[in-house]
Amino acid sequence: MGEFELLARIRERLPAIGPRIHLGSGDDAAITLPGGATATSVDALVEGVHFRRDLAAPAQIGHKALATALSDLAAMGAAAGEAYVVLGLPAGFDEDECVELLDGMAALAERTGTALAGGDLSRAGELFLAVTVVGHAPTPQSLVRRRGAKPGDVVVLSGEIGGAAAGLELLMRPTLGEGLEAGEVGGLRGRQLEPLPRLGAGRALAEAGARAMIDLSDGLGGDAAHIARGSDVKLEITAEAVPLAAGSRRVFEAADRDPWQLLGGGEDYELLATLPPERLADARQLVGETETGLALTEIGKVVPGVGVEIRLPGGGCVSPAGFDQLA
Amino acid sequence: MGEFELLARIRERLPAIGPRIHLGSGDDAAITLPGGATATSVDALVEGVHFRRDLAAPAQIGHKALATALSDLAAMGAAAGEAYVVLGLPAGFDEDECVELLDGMAALAERTGTALAGGDLSRAGELFLAVTVVGHAPTPQSLVRRRGAKPGDVVVLSGEIGGAAAGLELLMRPTLGEGLEAGEVGGLRGRQLEPLPRLGAGRALAEAGARAMIDLSDGLGGDAAHIARGSDVKLEITAEAVPLAAGSRRVFEAADRDPWQLLGGGEDYELLATLPPERLADARQLVGETETGLALTEIGKVVPGVGVEIRLPGGGCVSPAGFDQLA
Repeated sequence: MGEFELLARIRERLPAIGPRIHLGSGDDAAITLPGGATATSVDALVEGVHFRRDLAAPAQIGHKALATALSDLAAMGAAAGEAYVVLGLPAGFDEDECVELLDGMAALAERTGTALAGGDLSRAGELFLAVTVVGHAPTPQSLVRRRGAKPGDVVVLSGEIGGAAAGLELLMRPTLGEGLEAGEVGGLRGRQLEPLPRLGAGRALAEAGARAMIDLSDGLGGDAAHIARGSDVKLEITAEAVPLAAGSRRVFEAADRDPWQLLGGGEDYELLATLPPERLADARQLVGETETGLALTEIGKVVPGVGVEIRLPGGGCVSPAGFDQLA
Repeated sequence: MGEFELLARIRERLPAIGPRIHLGSGDDAAITLPGGATATSVDALVEGVHFRRDLAAPAQIGHKALATALSDLAAMGAAAGEAYVVLGLPAGFDEDECVELLDGMAALAERTGTALAGGDLSRAGELFLAVTVVGHAPTPQSLVRRRGAKPGDVVVLSGEIGGAAAGLELLMRPTLGEGLEAGEVGGLRGRQLEPLPRLGAGRALAEAGARAMIDLSDGLGGDAAHIARGSDVKLEITAEAVPLAAGSRRVFEAADRDPWQLLGGGEDYELLATLPPERLADARQLVGETETGLALTEIGKVVPGVGVEIRLPGGGCVSPAGFDQLA
């Protein structure tokens, strides 16, 4: 395919440029006028490592690459701003598939108010996507880091987890979904293929006074450990308090896997945060207002010490590393 | 290799964080406070497409990936700010090579005042690097775009070109360098393996009133055509006026290639700009002061019309597409 013709087709599909953008795609660099603090993160998805082209459509791959990058902005409490996209295109990936991939990305960009402001294309041996996202906030202090959790804080989780891991099982072995309702199957597959960054919840939690926050990409234990290490505290989490996605437990049982492994599955892109207990009611209300119907669940507490303890029913507990590696 | 141990080794090697950075690598996102306009660009280098691991050392690959990205900031007249780096690491690329690659990048970062502020690592089938760079300027209007050239402007070029193309020939066939001095061989290889972004010259040209500017990554004709198309003008370039890197002509002659193909070789990362003629003397002085000894050469003029014409000695001329595709 001709690079220039493909670039022309791509530019046609990009959403209208955003309010901060003075010059979008097509020059040596994009020009923006941030007007405050910026949060910048970069994420890569590589074929065979992060996705399989036989399980995910090009539009879903494009969606997920932008979603995982934006999820890092959500975890800071930043508002989505601009995205810059590198695509590595293998010989077997044709121009229509490339446009479909960009359409999937552009749809999520429009939904989240993100401007696709620039990018680069290259031939490659395998399909890969690297997405840099820039988010905005009034000041550096209005963004929430991983450090900052204090003993006495409650540990809260947005939404439900386990759906992405169960969805992956379903994609690889569709017969595992035989006992589920169609809506549950679709819901779980969607959590794996088209996760949504919790941008609204992230801003709400920042506004409500979250002291530390992270998005759940690697698994509950491992990501909680980042907060514990960054804040020099211990996070005690009650496994039974963690809301699991509808049907996820049954998929794992059908696959002969311990359903508690769902906690370590990762890729749910929900937010884990710590808050002073007196801020919990406000946080719940703000999150529910910003992302309609999204629950915020108290799943544990911050105590003096180091590391993470996830308490299982019956009195057992596991270290986060052991826990996530079960999965 | 363990991702966390490798990340720890990488963080140790990153240059001190810059004045605008409130939070560097290690959280969900980096936090910066830009304080003006930003220019953002992203560039990817892929093994087998942009470099060969048998011809370039890891440190040179790291250097070149950052250099090509920063060159886009130079072409806007922006000051280098932050860089965000994605590495795709194949199985055969070990931890020491990865650290060597980052050292090459970090050395150029330090030399150019760029902060390596974040990144992402992934396994991959082949080595690839995607580098996003953010540059800074007081206002959007102080950055120079591709559009803006006007009939009557002079066309100027920083430094010399052809060195990167001749250097590539030398790397593939070292015997071609037998008639050259050692310094010439080293110089040409260096132009291919470790190009330098013309950040100082770019800011000087912006300050001197450049109306349009681009860096020469694809070749003189093709890159000039971007200015012509963006500005809706014609660029007339005199081939004999273009300074060629010392020894490059002899390498192409030894390789039985037409030396005029050096103009289309690309990868020199010199700057091509247009200026009102009355600004030329100032521009020359500013460029020479900012990058000691760097020449600014008048190689053509902007006229009404469309496209690019490169006039060869003896009266012939070629269209840029035909010209660059010769190479």
